[in-house]
Amino acid sequence: MTDSPDRAAAPPFVGMVGAGQLARMTAQAAIGLGVGFRVLAGSPADSAAQVAAGTRVGDYRSLADLRDFAAGCDVLTFDHEHVPGEHLAALGQAGVPVRPAAAALRFTQDKLAMRERLTGLGIDCPRFAPVSGIAEVEAFAAGTWPVVLKAVSGGYDGKGVWVCGSADQARAVLAYGLRLIAEDYVPFERELAVLAARSPHRQGAVYPVVETVQRDGICREVIAPAPGLAPGRAAQAAELALRIAAELDVTGLLAVEMFETPAGLLVNELAMRPHNCGHWTIEGARTSQFEQHLRAVLDLPLGSPALAAPVTVMANVLGGDDADVYDRYIHVMAADPAVKVHMYGKPVRPGRKIGHVTVTGADPVELADRARRAASYLRWGEEDGE
Amino acid sequence: MTDSPDRAAAPPFVGMVGAGQLARMTAQAAIGLGVGFRVLAGSPADSAAQVAAGTRVGDYRSLADLRDFAAGCDVLTFDHEHVPGEHLAALGQAGVPVRPAAAALRFTQDKLAMRERLTGLGIDCPRFAPVSGIAEVEAFAAGTWPVVLKAVSGGYDGKGVWVCGSADQARAVLAYGLRLIAEDYVPFERELAVLAARSPHRQGAVYPVVETVQRDGICREVIAPAPGLAPGRAAQAAELALRIAAELDVTGLLAVEMFETPAGLLVNELAMRPHNCGHWTIEGARTSQFEQHLRAVLDLPLGSPALAAPVTVMANVLGGDDADVYDRYIHVMAADPAVKVHMYGKPVRPGRKIGHVTVTGADPVELADRARRAASYLRWGEEDGE
Repeated sequence: MTDSPDRAAAPPFVGMVGAGQLARMTAQAAIGLGVGFRVLAGSPADSAAQVAAGTRVGDYRSLADLRDFAAGCDVLTFDHEHVPGEHLAALGQAGVPVRPAAAALRFTQDKLAMRERLTGLGIDCPRFAPVSGIAEVEAFAAGTWPVVLKAVSGGYDGKGVWVCGSADQARAVLAYGLRLIAEDYVPFERELAVLAARSPHRQGAVYPVVETVQRDGICREVIAPAPGLAPGRAAQAAELALRIAAELDVTGLLAVEMFETPAGLLVNELAMRPHNCGHWTIEGARTSQFEQHLRAVLDLPLGSPALAAPVTVMANVLGGDDADVYDRYIHVMAADPAVKVHMYGKPVRPGRKIGHVTVTGADPVELADRARRAASYLRWGEEDGE
Repeated sequence: MTDSPDRAAAPPFVGMVGAGQLARMTAQAAIGLGVGFRVLAGSPADSAAQVAAGTRVGDYRSLADLRDFAAGCDVLTFDHEHVPGEHLAALGQAGVPVRPAAAALRFTQDKLAMRERLTGLGIDCPRFAPVSGIAEVEAFAAGTWPVVLKAVSGGYDGKGVWVCGSADQARAVLAYGLRLIAEDYVPFERELAVLAARSPHRQGAVYPVVETVQRDGICREVIAPAPGLAPGRAAQAAELALRIAAELDVTGLLAVEMFETPAGLLVNELAMRPHNCGHWTIEGARTSQFEQHLRAVLDLPLGSPALAAPVTVMANVLGGDDADVYDRYIHVMAADPAVKVHMYGKPVRPGRKIGHVTVTGADPVELADRARRAASYLRWGEEDGE
């Protein structure tokens, strides 16, 4: 051993635009990886800003703020898809590695472009059409309701999606003055999601396909792997995600939300960031989606997406009527010492995602019961009509 | 659902004195639990200070700095045992919940007090005696060398412990002018460690007993659970840890390092904080030791210490001759996508712990091989004579 002085190794540095729970959990993963990490937060009270060192406060809609934030970062990435495309392109042209790049993120910012691109690739999606007035919606419906109207831009967790049971309901949505597409209302058997990662070196990795349970347009539960999924269909879903990631030149994570129907899989939505359908990976997979996203955007070799337990169930914790989550959380911990509680540090607002719980084991029915019980107790005072 | 405004829930807040890797990994756990957390760092460059929000810089030997740091914290805890006992007592008397309390921590700060207390409880330890001069050491040795000399106070990771093969070597240690105890050099079969948690409510939880492999007084590997340990001995070790935790009124974690000998278990060392022997729990147990420590000091119900995988092996990454760890780390990730790399953000110095790697699976021999390979590659340029 030589007696050389301390030498500082220089870890790569990631800047994440956005400071919600996805950034918060990415900060956790960055600590383990030993990579530098900071967030661009709208407020010091944001979920990730509460916990991460070096937080910058700024506006993701301001190119100047984005430029300032990017200085000193080896790569810029995102916990949401709301950064204006022209800013992303400008940053990219200025030599900032933006991952995913503007050209890929566009397909999460413009649902019409996404549908056109996917169908152009021969990938099955619900039937769709751009609509700008009631005549076009009625022509699309051809007498069969409901019809789904979606805002072409924006939309998060179901906001921006309306299931219209009649022309009158469609008129009310049209009145918002948004760019819209109409889509078939798909009578699916269940919803599935698949999460892939892709690096600039074009390495790809895909997690096992999961079942997602949504209510009121909000993800409530994820069961990993999707119970009883035919092996051929699982392989098809995995191949689909890797293919979309490659065709759209995604770097980082790609979440593909799908409908499983008797006729096969239809792609519903895409996201290019850590996603609620992958929270289970923190305990349930060898590499969490948050670590995987960091590895992918840094062009590090991807981690194993293999299961760490036969079955994992994640349930979102939504805000209820009583803000004192930390009082109830004691009871949840006492009742089930193996449930993992993840809280996001967000103010409680009814129906808002404020945390999630994860349980690992072998029996999806038992695990879902335990996860629901914990999530429901943490929510308190709101039964959601069930 | 009511349409009430945002309401902030108030999570409990933990202050941890010290900002090394133990605090860094505790910060990670605090994010998931959603509890408030900050560290008292000696420097903003400290391992935990790099990643945790709200870091305070100050001196743990200053009562004023400790008081300032404690203000606003619901509980004060530690990532090392070097805070002067009188400061701990003063803080406790001033009403700051200090966990573990001064009276318990004393047994990690004074090895003579620890030995006397444990033997008073009838717990087997190596034979020991306080020594202040060579005549006492020679009387203790009674012609049988080596003899172990230990500093009564201080000592971390083997520094402060000397194996003396002769009276001359003992004289050299005595020359340091430290308070010392002499102990038998125990010809152990292997070293074991057991980690327990205890809360102010007196709930206890104990992790499976692990085997630890030390070289040059530094922990190199941990295998969980200890391979081939007789069930009776495992139960005895677990019971020992819970009993010591209760008798010493420990709150938080207690690590008990033991020698396994043909005649049974001998207690070697105690620590009352997250400990290197428990890093494997991040991936290998349902509740990581860092989360468990937070739960214990906050008097939350303890988490399940059950195994999350049949076998987990952890290997420490020591600094080598080449500082550019992040260059080599790419190759380690590429070679074994399932190995979990934890880097501490510490400057590389030969022989210093700068990170650790963990591998989970079923076969301890295969896992140890993979963990060693990854750790050795990250170290680089130093073969340790093997």
